[in-house]
Amino acid sequence: MNAASLSKRVQVAAKQVIADVVLKGGTIVNVFTGEPMQGDIAIVDGIIAGIGSYEGKETVDVSGKWIVPGLIDGHVHIESTMLTPREFAKVSLQHGVTSVITDPHEIANVAGTKGIQYMLEQSEELPFDIFTMLPSCVPVTPYESNGANVGAEDLAPFYNHPKVIGLAEMMDFAALSNQERGMLDKITSAHNNGKRIDGHAAGIAREDLNLYMSAGIRTDHECVNVAEAKDRLNLGMYLMIREGTVAKDLRALVPVVTAQNARRCLFVTDDKLIDDLVDEGSIDHNVRLAIQEGISPCTAVQMATLNTAECFGLADRGAIAPGYQADLVVLDDLDTFSIHQVFKRGKCVVDQGELIKEAFAAAPAAAEDKGLTAFHTAELSEQQLAIPLSSDLCNVIEIIPNSLVTIHRQEIVDRVDGCFVPSVTKDQLKLAVIERHKATGNIGLGIVKGFQFTHGAIASSVAHDSHNLIVAGASDAEMLTAARHVIQMKGGLAVVSGSEVLASLPLPVAGLLSEWRYEEVYACMKQLNEALRAIGTPATFNPFLTLSFLALPVIPHLKLTDKGLFEFASHAHIGIQASSLQ
Amino acid sequence: MNAASLSKRVQVAAKQVIADVVLKGGTIVNVFTGEPMQGDIAIVDGIIAGIGSYEGKETVDVSGKWIVPGLIDGHVHIESTMLTPREFAKVSLQHGVTSVITDPHEIANVAGTKGIQYMLEQSEELPFDIFTMLPSCVPVTPYESNGANVGAEDLAPFYNHPKVIGLAEMMDFAALSNQERGMLDKITSAHNNGKRIDGHAAGIAREDLNLYMSAGIRTDHECVNVAEAKDRLNLGMYLMIREGTVAKDLRALVPVVTAQNARRCLFVTDDKLIDDLVDEGSIDHNVRLAIQEGISPCTAVQMATLNTAECFGLADRGAIAPGYQADLVVLDDLDTFSIHQVFKRGKCVVDQGELIKEAFAAAPAAAEDKGLTAFHTAELSEQQLAIPLSSDLCNVIEIIPNSLVTIHRQEIVDRVDGCFVPSVTKDQLKLAVIERHKATGNIGLGIVKGFQFTHGAIASSVAHDSHNLIVAGASDAEMLTAARHVIQMKGGLAVVSGSEVLASLPLPVAGLLSEWRYEEVYACMKQLNEALRAIGTPATFNPFLTLSFLALPVIPHLKLTDKGLFEFASHAHIGIQASSLQ
Repeated sequence: MNAASLSKRVQVAAKQVIADVVLKGGTIVNVFTGEPMQGDIAIVDGIIAGIGSYEGKETVDVSGKWIVPGLIDGHVHIESTMLTPREFAKVSLQHGVTSVITDPHEIANVAGTKGIQYMLEQSEELPFDIFTMLPSCVPVTPYESNGANVGAEDLAPFYNHPKVIGLAEMMDFAALSNQERGMLDKITSAHNNGKRIDGHAAGIAREDLNLYMSAGIRTDHECVNVAEAKDRLNLGMYLMIREGTVAKDLRALVPVVTAQNARRCLFVTDDKLIDDLVDEGSIDHNVRLAIQEGISPCTAVQMATLNTAECFGLADRGAIAPGYQADLVVLDDLDTFSIHQVFKRGKCVVDQGELIKEAFAAAPAAAEDKGLTAFHTAELSEQQLAIPLSSDLCNVIEIIPNSLVTIHRQEIVDRVDGCFVPSVTKDQLKLAVIERHKATGNIGLGIVKGFQFTHGAIASSVAHDSHNLIVAGASDAEMLTAARHVIQMKGGLAVVSGSEVLASLPLPVAGLLSEWRYEEVYACMKQLNEALRAIGTPATFNPFLTLSFLALPVIPHLKLTDKGLFEFASHAHIGIQASSLQ
Repeated sequence: MNAASLSKRVQVAAKQVIADVVLKGGTIVNVFTGEPMQGDIAIVDGIIAGIGSYEGKETVDVSGKWIVPGLIDGHVHIESTMLTPREFAKVSLQHGVTSVITDPHEIANVAGTKGIQYMLEQSEELPFDIFTMLPSCVPVTPYESNGANVGAEDLAPFYNHPKVIGLAEMMDFAALSNQERGMLDKITSAHNNGKRIDGHAAGIAREDLNLYMSAGIRTDHECVNVAEAKDRLNLGMYLMIREGTVAKDLRALVPVVTAQNARRCLFVTDDKLIDDLVDEGSIDHNVRLAIQEGISPCTAVQMATLNTAECFGLADRGAIAPGYQADLVVLDDLDTFSIHQVFKRGKCVVDQGELIKEAFAAAPAAAEDKGLTAFHTAELSEQQLAIPLSSDLCNVIEIIPNSLVTIHRQEIVDRVDGCFVPSVTKDQLKLAVIERHKATGNIGLGIVKGFQFTHGAIASSVAHDSHNLIVAGASDAEMLTAARHVIQMKGGLAVVSGSEVLASLPLPVAGLLSEWRYEEVYACMKQLNEALRAIGTPATFNPFLTLSFLALPVIPHLKLTDKGLFEFASHAHIGIQASSLQ
């Protein structure tokens, strides 16, 4: 801020100079008082200068409309949309979201600090604010091969970046409990830089939450029921109420919200696929659901704006008041939260529900410049996919539709020439996780149940958290075709039938993100879904999403990494042969 | 924070190591949920490590007691107590206040940045936290002579001090409205240093509040009724509810507090004399009054703790939770707020309501070292006090007991040899304001009504905001004796009868603060009160406090500065002679 800009703003506030834009005649949702309020909103240089009776160079008639502050997503992984920050911004704005707090956890696990740097750069000069919490757990576990190791000393320089506001979801409870030096260093570094730390306390018992809080870790977005929510609120953690593509916790959690504790509750999406984001919405969806569940609209808006801003110390947004950024959402109706217009820093970016394309400058440089298109696999051959077996009884991963958790089965499988062969009648497919960061040649093999393919294969370079190449198929040949297609695209998704690639989406940025416009990615997702139906998968769950969590060893019960089958209960790799002692 | 201290705290949280101190068996007022909560409080290195079931090297049995976070005063001028920060801390702690946000406005008006520096230094190494907002208006007006001119460039270096958190009460609305460069510079400097700015919006109309808010000035402690309070809350200002020695706004303001807006309301004292502070209390008094007025005890506690911490971005206090400073108040009873024990950073500093003296290290260096004992007046003589008059009709200041406002009277006065003579029968005393910063020889003279002296004089070096030497008396001789006694003490208060000084209090630190222990100052105040009774003043108001506001030209209606009588309505100096055109 300089004296000239301050002077101008005060002059507008004092009506000595007219505003750039005035929104006239609307009803403001006042998040400070929790009550509706009348008043013109006068804007200058993207900042609200006054509320009252004002004139502007431009007048926007919002009579009969409601005006709420721009929504803020308290925790989102942009990579889950497979969109660049720019395209993610376009979709988010159409849903009234004007700021997000993000964690580039996925891209950091592939590309380390280069990935973080890329996301920060791609977030610049947008009519949208992306605040970054630095990934705290790269790699997450030693049970799989990821692309980078990011320590406290690697993160520290990023704290000088104006959009970096903290350390992201601390999920390694064991490292904290054991006071591992690397983890302590990350935490102290965040504190000493005056930054906040997000938690990730999935399933953490009440008294164990003390470890997080004592270390200054003050949020949780992994809470799934009222009892857990109460524990977190009681101990002083901000309760992030999540509604994403897979994790849908809102209905279970809103009963905990009271007039007294609402200030400590906020909304997040965490992980949302592009189709859900486009079709259903972002934080606006959380608000709508909350209102449906009986939360008062003003409280729901507070949870989507002021509370989030306070949680992250963002003093310039989250409310409609002089001195605050002019991030505004104009609604046709408050209860249904139907979005009419969106203003970002005083500029209309969505009108009549349509994005104003001119709000976005020319696209920035492509990822190739940043060294993020590397996709390093060793030479692939059919025999590398062979699973030799000495008996028919095998450990089998059974997927649970729309869940990250799997069932650990032991089943009789088919063998030919002493090797496992997939069976579509038994719904036993082959699963492979192919290391793709350093061409180590690591391939983990397993058997998966539940995809219901009639034939074909699917492959993806999105596989949490290390994002190796994961392939499931009814035959080795189709798996190879799918895998090779993804490798050729330097990352992406593919559906194969016989020797034909039915549909695919290139994800050249770290094997995670498309550089296409969001409409193209969205259309391609629809084609992929059709192709999935063609190879027999039911429409009741998302096979690529399911696939992407099959390599995540921190979730029960049986998973597959590039180092082999991983049993959660024993926290150890096990053999495919059920009788194997390994 | 370093890894070792973090590690130790986490070990205590995890019960791998026992705590330093555990408070067992109490009921915690949980300011996050607004509900009572059971649990042991485990403390290590002055920080709360865990809440649950804990063991410590030392156990404090608080069964049957209530535990609330250490109270925070959101806005207080320590100088009003005439105590050093150290002695102020001792009194405050006994009232459960463990942190304050202060504005060294008075000492800065006398001694400039040296005064600010002194207050910061004297605030160190106490079992008490004094956060400083830098004085924004030194001098306040051009209508009187003060001791220093403190500009943006003088304030800026202080923002690096860890206890300096912002710019104090911006009271010069005109300077903002006129976009005066000096004021803009102070505001932008605060913002650019990431600091907060307090407001002072006495009598400011609703739409004019936009000027403050647009400039990022987000608090007001000058609001006196529900309508004003609603205006401030609506526009996004934090509402500071004040209960001081003179300004008692709490009862008028609490009706505005709702479950929805309570988070934006907090308690302050602003100015409180030592006798009130000792006898009635500090923020504990605000809490008690609020409960009496129907605010729920949990909400009242939130307004005295968490809300204040949030308002000032103090993330390490204001709540009882792991990772928070162990500033705790143990109460015998919540509704009456009777204080049993106070813990500051985990150490018991008040037990059974008694201060633990050992909690305070040896006293720091005296003010003489800091160059704050200067008291510069020109030579004084009786003829300098003469008020020559050409007629009997004069402008007279009439005091209103217990108010800062005066009445502007025109009265017939007694003359001898063409000069005014005081009359105790007409209750017309002489008033003099003697410049004492630069020995300019400026003396402002006037006539004051309402003190009801039978004889004698009083003198004080505490006279807002420039703190010149102010004297009221029934005779020139007694006035001279009182003034000379204060000059001899290098500042202070004196009551004179005939040629005898009945009682006096030296205030050698900038003419504002005593360096005595608070018990001594308190006892001396009682003696001064007796002496005041001896010269005839009624016990229904405090003559020294009244005197201290008679030189404050920013308050209606007629005041006296070293430059002469000042009429608020015309914002100009006027003559004593009522017929005089000046």
